[in-house]
Amino acid sequence: MLFSKSFIFTTREDPKSAECVSHRLLLRGNFIFMVSAGIYAYLPLGYRVLNKIINIIRRQMEDIGAQELLMSALQPLELWVKTGRDKDLEEVMFRLKDRKERDLCLGPTHEEEITEIVRKSVTSYRQLPLILYQIQVKFRDEPRPRFGLVRGCEFIMKDAYSFDVDEDGLGLSYEKMYQAYQAIFKECGLEFIVTEAESGFMGGEISHEFMAPALIGEDIMFYCPRCRLYLRQQNPCPQCQGQLEEKRMIELAHVFKLGTKYSLAQEAHFLDNQGRLKPIIMGCYGIGVSRLLAAIVEQNHDEKGIIWPESISPFDIEILVLEESLLTEAISLEQKLIKKKKDVLIDERAESSGVKFNDAMLLGCPYILVMGKNYLKSRRIDLELRRTKEKLSLTEEELLNYLK
Amino acid sequence: MLFSKSFIFTTREDPKSAECVSHRLLLRGNFIFMVSAGIYAYLPLGYRVLNKIINIIRRQMEDIGAQELLMSALQPLELWVKTGRDKDLEEVMFRLKDRKERDLCLGPTHEEEITEIVRKSVTSYRQLPLILYQIQVKFRDEPRPRFGLVRGCEFIMKDAYSFDVDEDGLGLSYEKMYQAYQAIFKECGLEFIVTEAESGFMGGEISHEFMAPALIGEDIMFYCPRCRLYLRQQNPCPQCQGQLEEKRMIELAHVFKLGTKYSLAQEAHFLDNQGRLKPIIMGCYGIGVSRLLAAIVEQNHDEKGIIWPESISPFDIEILVLEESLLTEAISLEQKLIKKKKDVLIDERAESSGVKFNDAMLLGCPYILVMGKNYLKSRRIDLELRRTKEKLSLTEEELLNYLK
Repeated sequence: MLFSKSFIFTTREDPKSAECVSHRLLLRGNFIFMVSAGIYAYLPLGYRVLNKIINIIRRQMEDIGAQELLMSALQPLELWVKTGRDKDLEEVMFRLKDRKERDLCLGPTHEEEITEIVRKSVTSYRQLPLILYQIQVKFRDEPRPRFGLVRGCEFIMKDAYSFDVDEDGLGLSYEKMYQAYQAIFKECGLEFIVTEAESGFMGGEISHEFMAPALIGEDIMFYCPRCRLYLRQQNPCPQCQGQLEEKRMIELAHVFKLGTKYSLAQEAHFLDNQGRLKPIIMGCYGIGVSRLLAAIVEQNHDEKGIIWPESISPFDIEILVLEESLLTEAISLEQKLIKKKKDVLIDERAESSGVKFNDAMLLGCPYILVMGKNYLKSRRIDLELRRTKEKLSLTEEELLNYLK
Repeated sequence: MLFSKSFIFTTREDPKSAECVSHRLLLRGNFIFMVSAGIYAYLPLGYRVLNKIINIIRRQMEDIGAQELLMSALQPLELWVKTGRDKDLEEVMFRLKDRKERDLCLGPTHEEEITEIVRKSVTSYRQLPLILYQIQVKFRDEPRPRFGLVRGCEFIMKDAYSFDVDEDGLGLSYEKMYQAYQAIFKECGLEFIVTEAESGFMGGEISHEFMAPALIGEDIMFYCPRCRLYLRQQNPCPQCQGQLEEKRMIELAHVFKLGTKYSLAQEAHFLDNQGRLKPIIMGCYGIGVSRLLAAIVEQNHDEKGIIWPESISPFDIEILVLEESLLTEAISLEQKLIKKKKDVLIDERAESSGVKFNDAMLLGCPYILVMGKNYLKSRRIDLELRRTKEKLSLTEEELLNYLK
């Protein structure tokens, strides 16, 4: 893809509204666009990253046999009255009426709707276990939207729901999902930990949070640098008696053993293998997908810009063409890289090498290739690794081998 | 994929709420789930079809250099005040306030938001032409939601927007998009025509509608069976003077040359190659993606169920395993078909062959393979073509060749 033909552009000044480093860098790189406080659009570059994250999630979900659907954003309020959560979530729920005075809300989460779907679909133990998930926009009337994609009024979530015949089944589904989530965050290049958590208005007894250490985190934990242990409690470390450090954490995901809270309230029953009517045992598993994007940038940047993990970078490779005459060579190299399944961005703009280099640092693709003046003579390409800043001078053949 | 492990199930009775054949078949096959009047969820089978349609659209958009983004569903009302369309669309616009009394609406369409994005991003003719598009949920407070996915309060649209320096540029963008839309509908297996249309509240002077003949269509046109011509006017045919037939049409897509309506109202200007400030010339191009699904079923069904066009069928092939002992053979065949990039559903339920066959007819995969009693002796598989009902008896090798 050619830079000048694409809707990619950078902003030199720090945007006034930026409240943290991920917010600032995502706005300066125009990965996202602020429509209004807490409301963002994903511009093509940001949408590429988002889709790479989504594809990682989909692959992991497919591996554990979870099936994707898409629920509605508009929900009849009456669904929420059955579980009493219209009250629990009153503060953050966007409510509205249609022209026929029907009471609706914008789904802040989807336990009620999925339970309703399963109630009408599942009648027998033969249809269980079942894991359903969706990747969808959610709405919450946040008292204080902030940090860009970290806490918004409209955000993208991946929410999964498991349905089992008994607690053992739930245990298995929960474990599968727990493992899949670990795999997802690893593949996204995140440093994270898992902790036991409170279930709050979701219900159920057991829940775990997946947390990523980051300066802008809203949860506080304590860390023992000697034992490399994250803890809820304060000093001293129970293991080595050493001093603990305060660490701020972003919640990436939260998984819950819901049990029968929703199936009882909404009468989602099934007939077991002895013909007895029983409530379905549920679990729910949420990932803040758009928040993930922010958390990744919080953990992967330097003073010059973003350092995307390879798995989710909008492009694998950016080629800086410093001489107009080298564009054909760059495009021919791009073709070879595309054959190796690499996404390539070619910066062929009529800009100085300084501007191009700074933009490449800001946009954060892991491999930056420089085709400069002496390329035609030396036939060597300069490769800079965005993360380590290591520089290599390679022939095309060496480069293609290196990037394999 | 195994039928009994998947969230696929059929309903024998016609749902009471069904208002037309596509609605009835999509509900009976549980492709969709009615959450409330005009509000639907896409169950895994329906979501597979939807994603196949979306992938066709994405490929065509990529071919013409259009770039995908994702805008917000929540929009500040003030954006709409600038163009005066808060009044034009008052009737169908869902409005709400957040806890800080901020006036918001749920985007019924996105001309205002995209113009705002481009206004803040594009400053020079060098950044044009540009085509941006998204596939996103839209909201309209319909006075009469009906026919399932045809007219709902929440629906999925693909909306594209072109930005050019002058009318000639708009002409080119419009032509590209027009061609791409024809390719999309052809690939989706739709019978359709294109007609000039009124621009209404969208603005601009030239617009075209892509219409599909269907019993439940809400637009009326006239058709000359001799000349094979669709016309807006009534009898007689201007070409052959023959009798015209009344035909009902579903609107699939609408494309508009918007001109400067939005760029003037929202001050989206650029500097041309002589340094003069000019308003950007815009076009907009919408496809009702979820409606497409309904239109395709309206045109592709018989008394037994849906007949999916191959390009968008949830599975290419359904294998009916009529003897439990043949499941291993079926799975081995599935593996060979997967290698040929075919999606396969294996119906291995403990149901009668009649039930399985009826369900296969309802679900509508184009190729139905039957592995029955005498398979182990004859090593021949019965293939039934869903559309023509043609039946073939093939060896595995012949089958793999046939399905290439």
